[in-house]
Amino acid sequence: MEQTDKKILCIGLVCLDIINVVDKYPEEDTDKRCLSQRWQRGGNASNSCTILAQLGAPCAFMGSVAHGPVADFIMNDFKMYETDISLIVEHAKCSVPTSVVISSETTGSRTILHTNSNLPDVTAEDFSKLDLSQYQWIHWEGRNAAEQVKMIEKVREYNRKQEKSNQITISVEIEKTREPLYQLFPHGDLVFVSKDVAIHFGFQSAASALKGFYSRVRKGAVLICAWAEKGADAMGPDGVVVHSDAFPPEKVVDTLGAGDTFNASVIYSLSRGGTLQEALTFGCQIAGKKCGIHGYDGILP
Amino acid sequence: MEQTDKKILCIGLVCLDIINVVDKYPEEDTDKRCLSQRWQRGGNASNSCTILAQLGAPCAFMGSVAHGPVADFIMNDFKMYETDISLIVEHAKCSVPTSVVISSETTGSRTILHTNSNLPDVTAEDFSKLDLSQYQWIHWEGRNAAEQVKMIEKVREYNRKQEKSNQITISVEIEKTREPLYQLFPHGDLVFVSKDVAIHFGFQSAASALKGFYSRVRKGAVLICAWAEKGADAMGPDGVVVHSDAFPPEKVVDTLGAGDTFNASVIYSLSRGGTLQEALTFGCQIAGKKCGIHGYDGILP
Repeated sequence: MEQTDKKILCIGLVCLDIINVVDKYPEEDTDKRCLSQRWQRGGNASNSCTILAQLGAPCAFMGSVAHGPVADFIMNDFKMYETDISLIVEHAKCSVPTSVVISSETTGSRTILHTNSNLPDVTAEDFSKLDLSQYQWIHWEGRNAAEQVKMIEKVREYNRKQEKSNQITISVEIEKTREPLYQLFPHGDLVFVSKDVAIHFGFQSAASALKGFYSRVRKGAVLICAWAEKGADAMGPDGVVVHSDAFPPEKVVDTLGAGDTFNASVIYSLSRGGTLQEALTFGCQIAGKKCGIHGYDGILP
Repeated sequence: MEQTDKKILCIGLVCLDIINVVDKYPEEDTDKRCLSQRWQRGGNASNSCTILAQLGAPCAFMGSVAHGPVADFIMNDFKMYETDISLIVEHAKCSVPTSVVISSETTGSRTILHTNSNLPDVTAEDFSKLDLSQYQWIHWEGRNAAEQVKMIEKVREYNRKQEKSNQITISVEIEKTREPLYQLFPHGDLVFVSKDVAIHFGFQSAASALKGFYSRVRKGAVLICAWAEKGADAMGPDGVVVHSDAFPPEKVVDTLGAGDTFNASVIYSLSRGGTLQEALTFGCQIAGKKCGIHGYDGILP
């Protein structure tokens, strides 16, 4: 199988986003009528699959779902976006995490109410059942990091037995400011670190975050940090900071999932042989396009 | 059939409330984790049925529902609360209105995001199929008022042919500040007018609202206005304002549906022969109890 015919696998969360579009963010203790409301499949890894599928990359999602009406909605939606869901782990007695999103038309802001769910993340044991020869790239949304490190080690082991051209590229996303997630830094060939985490560590820009965090990544790895309307920066082993400006749409209407769109677009470009600069620019372009539309239909340039 | 064995029918909205309990109301453009999230059947008439059923009154709901997972949830919940749903009108191609509620533990505030739904209200034609001999009381949540007036006229016609002891009591609720709803004033034997409507008309208290609005109601009718933590006032044909203080719980945790609880409790008390003072006090007691608990389980004194 040609490497580019192999799938890109994203591992992480799928949830339901109930998106309420309002003219402006509601004041506390008022009744407000939404401009519109929609159910949308969400979760970082799940969103990145949606983008990869739209860009034309064969892709697969691995994560947990529950049973019931919400799960049915999610599974149908994955199928609509041609994502391989054969690796999904089902838990009958759990509920699907549901986030309420308030999306303001005036400001483009998205306010998110997350819910704790009793749904366990996939484990290294679940992962050990995979036929790794089907994948060219595996991306982990940082969640149950200790288990995820074990999964990554299995891929490293697999890679050591392969020719370079057959090896699986490993990427990780460190988005939330949670201490256990930082153990993922030394494990990716490509590491996405969020503006939130960078700010949490006291950095004021993407470039300074890259310089500050680079000592944590593995030898030869690429570190990327997107910074909303300031664009994104990347740094490889040569220590040179590569930058792309943002490509803001005429009107920002929905920034939900813009980060997941950026990640998927960068992965897509690199997996097709793009340079770091090309991938970064492409990521910013597609993410910018996304901010100008509701949801993900119509992100292609 | 004894009059008190006959059902109390509530006509109006049933919807899904997705209730997100937070420690404090979220700031715009942040991510927040909820303390809990639950699905709850909502809608004024639907909530009032829940209370009536818990108080032990035989009750029925009339309103529209769609098909699908949300409708299934709603129908199951009605059954759990022993409400007669044989009068529900189904619309296959519509969606159930869904409201997102943000309930703050710190302040007890409830911020509601409503959604327009394509679900039509029940009509006078739907209503004409009813066997009115089954009901002792019919309560209308003011919505499609012109149609509702036609329904009420059918009941008046029915009542004219009955002995006094067999007549159906007619109550209406005017909660929202929408001009067409005010045509309901002259049609109820009992009229609930909300604090919102009273304030909209420039009244500063329940008592002044009653005096101001009383000329609009039919001869002999009772007008009631609840005023949140200030309790509630009522006025009958004798022009005497009756008052009950509120009965606040030790800690207010959830005021959603408190008004519907008040209405149902007043109707219950009056339907069992309570005086206006007794009904008002009972309404304030049960509504106060409700504010101290999440949802409706445990409202009985």
